[in-house]
Amino acid sequence: MELLDAMNWRYAAKRMNGQPVPEEKLNTILEAIRLSASSVGLQPYNVIVTDSHELKGKIHQLACPQPQVVEASHILIFAAWTSLEAEHIDRYIQLIADTRKTSADTLTPFADSIKGSLLTMDDEQRYNWAARQSYIGLGSALIAAAVEKVDATPMEGFNGSALDELLDLPAKGLKSIAILALGYRDAENDFLAKAAKVRRPAEDFFLEMA
Amino acid sequence: MELLDAMNWRYAAKRMNGQPVPEEKLNTILEAIRLSASSVGLQPYNVIVTDSHELKGKIHQLACPQPQVVEASHILIFAAWTSLEAEHIDRYIQLIADTRKTSADTLTPFADSIKGSLLTMDDEQRYNWAARQSYIGLGSALIAAAVEKVDATPMEGFNGSALDELLDLPAKGLKSIAILALGYRDAENDFLAKAAKVRRPAEDFFLEMA
Repeated sequence: MELLDAMNWRYAAKRMNGQPVPEEKLNTILEAIRLSASSVGLQPYNVIVTDSHELKGKIHQLACPQPQVVEASHILIFAAWTSLEAEHIDRYIQLIADTRKTSADTLTPFADSIKGSLLTMDDEQRYNWAARQSYIGLGSALIAAAVEKVDATPMEGFNGSALDELLDLPAKGLKSIAILALGYRDAENDFLAKAAKVRRPAEDFFLEMA
Repeated sequence: MELLDAMNWRYAAKRMNGQPVPEEKLNTILEAIRLSASSVGLQPYNVIVTDSHELKGKIHQLACPQPQVVEASHILIFAAWTSLEAEHIDRYIQLIADTRKTSADTLTPFADSIKGSLLTMDDEQRYNWAARQSYIGLGSALIAAAVEKVDATPMEGFNGSALDELLDLPAKGLKSIAILALGYRDAENDFLAKAAKVRRPAEDFFLEMA
């Protein structure tokens, strides 16, 4: 089974070799993120993409001193929306109307239902909700990268405030939640490259209920 | 591109036709979840699996009155760990040692580093962190299902306390975070089956930075 083979092949490379990820493969990975499901379809996050040597260097220095940040071809930063206003939802409703060639008015009950559930959350609940949605996209990116035989290392252990300031994210209504390094494993220098994958056994991870 | 084709084919079916998902396909979807990445590899969540007619009926009645809950073949419930103690981490370290045929002692620096970052979070931070990890698995499940041409509808809008009580989750240290209905779309009765997919345009969703 091709998908499971790809998932078994992947691991979080701690060292990469600097080789660039071809544009076509990068675009497939990005498109997989963009096509990912999200709650009510809102996609309340953005993905920052860079292959700038200089910017990777700054991220490495200020926020995330792990070698794969500068050894990667591209760095993606998943950043969740920090606020959610009625206008975000209205814009989304207009996007549905435009895409499906229907009138936004017919979508009013749907808009009201979304507003009722999302706009009543407090800021922290909403941020956590948005952050979770971005992790669906992160899951897609990891699979798409593996299928394309591109290595992908997700990272949460970074200085979020420093990264947000560096990228001017607060002004954009965004807060970084995860970094994803895309590139190619440096199998010689990464002791994990040959290590067996560790996952909880199915009988512990799944609970069958009748 | 097969993966993107599968992602374009999928949508969150609001009506399903009751047809069972063959065991082999189900197992592929479950294995994709189990193989999913998670922060430090800990997989701090469980996935409840049921195809019980009776249990699906109770979930539908008590917690999630959406038709696809009873029309689905299987219901998965992603449930995040509500607590995280040193012993969870020790058990994980032992799993690494067993899998890689090494001694747990050599992993002490890694164990200490995980404990340092995770055991200092408060309960809510930890739950949110665990919930995010489960969404990586949810993202994998959605893709694996689409590749297997199985429909998959993720749901967050349910009565979590009622569901948790029904499944006795608090006693298991778990809290439900998302439901995933697996089955087959009822294209005739689901007005969304033929609707165009709506996603934010790439130029709005991705921010390229240099």
